[in-house]
Amino acid sequence: MEVRTGATPVRGFHFAGVSAGLKTNPGVKDLGLIVADSEVAAAGVFTANRVQAAPVAIARQSLARGRLRAIVANSGSANCFTGRAGLKLARDSAAAVARELGCAPGAVAPCSTGVIGHLYDFDKYRRGVNEAVAALAPDGLEGFARAIMTTDTRPKLASVALRLGGAELTIAGAAKGAGMIEPHMATMLAFIVTDAAVPAAALRGILRRILPVSFNAITVDGDMSTNDTLILMASGAAGNRRLSSREFASFEAGVREVARSLAWQLVYDGEGATKLVPIEVRGARNEADAFRVARKIANSPLVKTAFFGCDPNVGRIIAAAGASGVAFDPERLDLQVGGVRIAARGALLVDALPEAQARMREREFRVILDLKQGRARAVVLTSDLSFDYVKINAEYTT
Amino acid sequence: MEVRTGATPVRGFHFAGVSAGLKTNPGVKDLGLIVADSEVAAAGVFTANRVQAAPVAIARQSLARGRLRAIVANSGSANCFTGRAGLKLARDSAAAVARELGCAPGAVAPCSTGVIGHLYDFDKYRRGVNEAVAALAPDGLEGFARAIMTTDTRPKLASVALRLGGAELTIAGAAKGAGMIEPHMATMLAFIVTDAAVPAAALRGILRRILPVSFNAITVDGDMSTNDTLILMASGAAGNRRLSSREFASFEAGVREVARSLAWQLVYDGEGATKLVPIEVRGARNEADAFRVARKIANSPLVKTAFFGCDPNVGRIIAAAGASGVAFDPERLDLQVGGVRIAARGALLVDALPEAQARMREREFRVILDLKQGRARAVVLTSDLSFDYVKINAEYTT
Repeated sequence: MEVRTGATPVRGFHFAGVSAGLKTNPGVKDLGLIVADSEVAAAGVFTANRVQAAPVAIARQSLARGRLRAIVANSGSANCFTGRAGLKLARDSAAAVARELGCAPGAVAPCSTGVIGHLYDFDKYRRGVNEAVAALAPDGLEGFARAIMTTDTRPKLASVALRLGGAELTIAGAAKGAGMIEPHMATMLAFIVTDAAVPAAALRGILRRILPVSFNAITVDGDMSTNDTLILMASGAAGNRRLSSREFASFEAGVREVARSLAWQLVYDGEGATKLVPIEVRGARNEADAFRVARKIANSPLVKTAFFGCDPNVGRIIAAAGASGVAFDPERLDLQVGGVRIAARGALLVDALPEAQARMREREFRVILDLKQGRARAVVLTSDLSFDYVKINAEYTT
Repeated sequence: MEVRTGATPVRGFHFAGVSAGLKTNPGVKDLGLIVADSEVAAAGVFTANRVQAAPVAIARQSLARGRLRAIVANSGSANCFTGRAGLKLARDSAAAVARELGCAPGAVAPCSTGVIGHLYDFDKYRRGVNEAVAALAPDGLEGFARAIMTTDTRPKLASVALRLGGAELTIAGAAKGAGMIEPHMATMLAFIVTDAAVPAAALRGILRRILPVSFNAITVDGDMSTNDTLILMASGAAGNRRLSSREFASFEAGVREVARSLAWQLVYDGEGATKLVPIEVRGARNEADAFRVARKIANSPLVKTAFFGCDPNVGRIIAAAGASGVAFDPERLDLQVGGVRIAARGALLVDALPEAQARMREREFRVILDLKQGRARAVVLTSDLSFDYVKINAEYTT
């Protein structure tokens, strides 16, 4: 299945991204809209953080019915830790969009990203909504993707085309990431739309199954956001007949690949990231163990600074694995970096280090740790920890 | 109780630190000895990492009897992930010391710190042992502390003097830290000696009780080492009578304050650290919850880079708390930084931020998060995440 990383139209949807003045830099896009031609099937998953942004609470209510007309997303403020005023602001924001579209406020899901603890200017927001509604277009997905960027350096887009159920289907998505990225339920903000006709309950099932191998399998800094949101909308405009179970599996694979591509792009553009490193743990007793070890390695500052320094530092990788709480026999460990085996049977292969170091100069390389105790595996995608991560986050002030 | 942070003699012990050539920089001390005049009561705790260094295995065996004559500790190599050759090397190292002192090899605890995966040169080590034995002196504790440094920029020493059981007692310790510091059982390497007469079982109890509030309550980078070791030795040379339970509590408090001071110094000299920040969580349902929240905040790269940038970033602190897995009501949170309340009843106090920012320019400031749901509290000490942390760890190669 070919995943394209640009924007594409999706029948039954219009998109827009405009500058409402919510961000301090003038002229930068900061308000985006996704609007279905009428109410469509939709499903969403949200952050597991105990502290949840106001728009998360409102969007969750909107999604409870399994139907949605529109998504409105802004950058420049997360509208989180803002108490009752924040809840009112999120509700008013959805209502402003609903009024323009002539739909119920509950058919609009509001999403926000940016600094925590501050409200945005509602007058600016409302004017931005009017402007965005006027700008809605079938080819507006890239503008939407730009409007939700914060410290992202580029928009994240992905799409696939499939022939299923007697129709040509398109699945396309947009996301934003950069920092505070260790999603648990979904990433900061990600939206996937399709013209397929698929009921809401089926969409929910798809999200539940694809999360562990897409957004929940990445990390930039181990910090779970308060605003993580993933919404999937299906317009049905493709006019496909009911999908057979085999066709449904293909459709789900399409959504999964779009989600994976977006998740991959989030890490690729992680704050200060210069490396993209899938951490694969093999030979675990079960998948939960494999994930736990992979996640501990993927979040270790010592491992991530070693990646930045192109250092095949076996010690840091196995020390992180050993600190994961998963039981294994260090004497049997086997470790590869960039396709070069640098440890086997619990000992370092010193002669292989220069070759591994050379491979680590690439933008992407894979770490494979084999625990040699079972058949389960898991992959967590991580980035390196660079000077720029510190610079970006020491200077991105309250 | 006054804790001094310099070296002090402790009756019944001799110390030395020499350059054995195990580190690449010539002339730098890298081998240290602590020798009791005869076998004395001792207790130790070790890393909970699944991957444990060879000297940890041997030292654990030596400590099992509750008696020890000497500790030999080297920097320049962790002797970890070195298989059978590493175990033999640790055993031979203890035996080399035992031969010089005329004691059983099992009365010597070997400890190592440095790069993982490499063996050190045993001939150099043995010559270093001979030299160290010749250099043993009552005032050699600072030289010992220097010999166990890796990326540490200064030796860590602490002592207290107490009058108990009809005698003047001294408790003194030395430690090393810097990186791979989130101890779980004990820190990288720490040694505390006293001239008090206290049986080994009592020493073990003391270690178990003081760990949660000293070495297990600090973090530099959330990376648990493979070599964490804390050993407590009591020579009895002070000639005190058996301590009453009240005196014993005072003695334990003395050990605790020495341990706390050493742990504090480890964070103060954490890799690249420019800030020292106790994270205090109050009002938790139980102590475990309080620790979990404090630890999650203390290990958040976003929180730590905000500390480096002197940014009172409420959002990052509460997002980290919310990601800890502990249930609380965000609407009741109360947050202070550097003595300034910057959030109350779940909302940001914007006007207070400039004052908080000014306080964060200090080398030390405290973060106090009140969950308002109970009476339990915990403190975890952390540092900031600076450019230098990345520099040190991207350049400290395999």
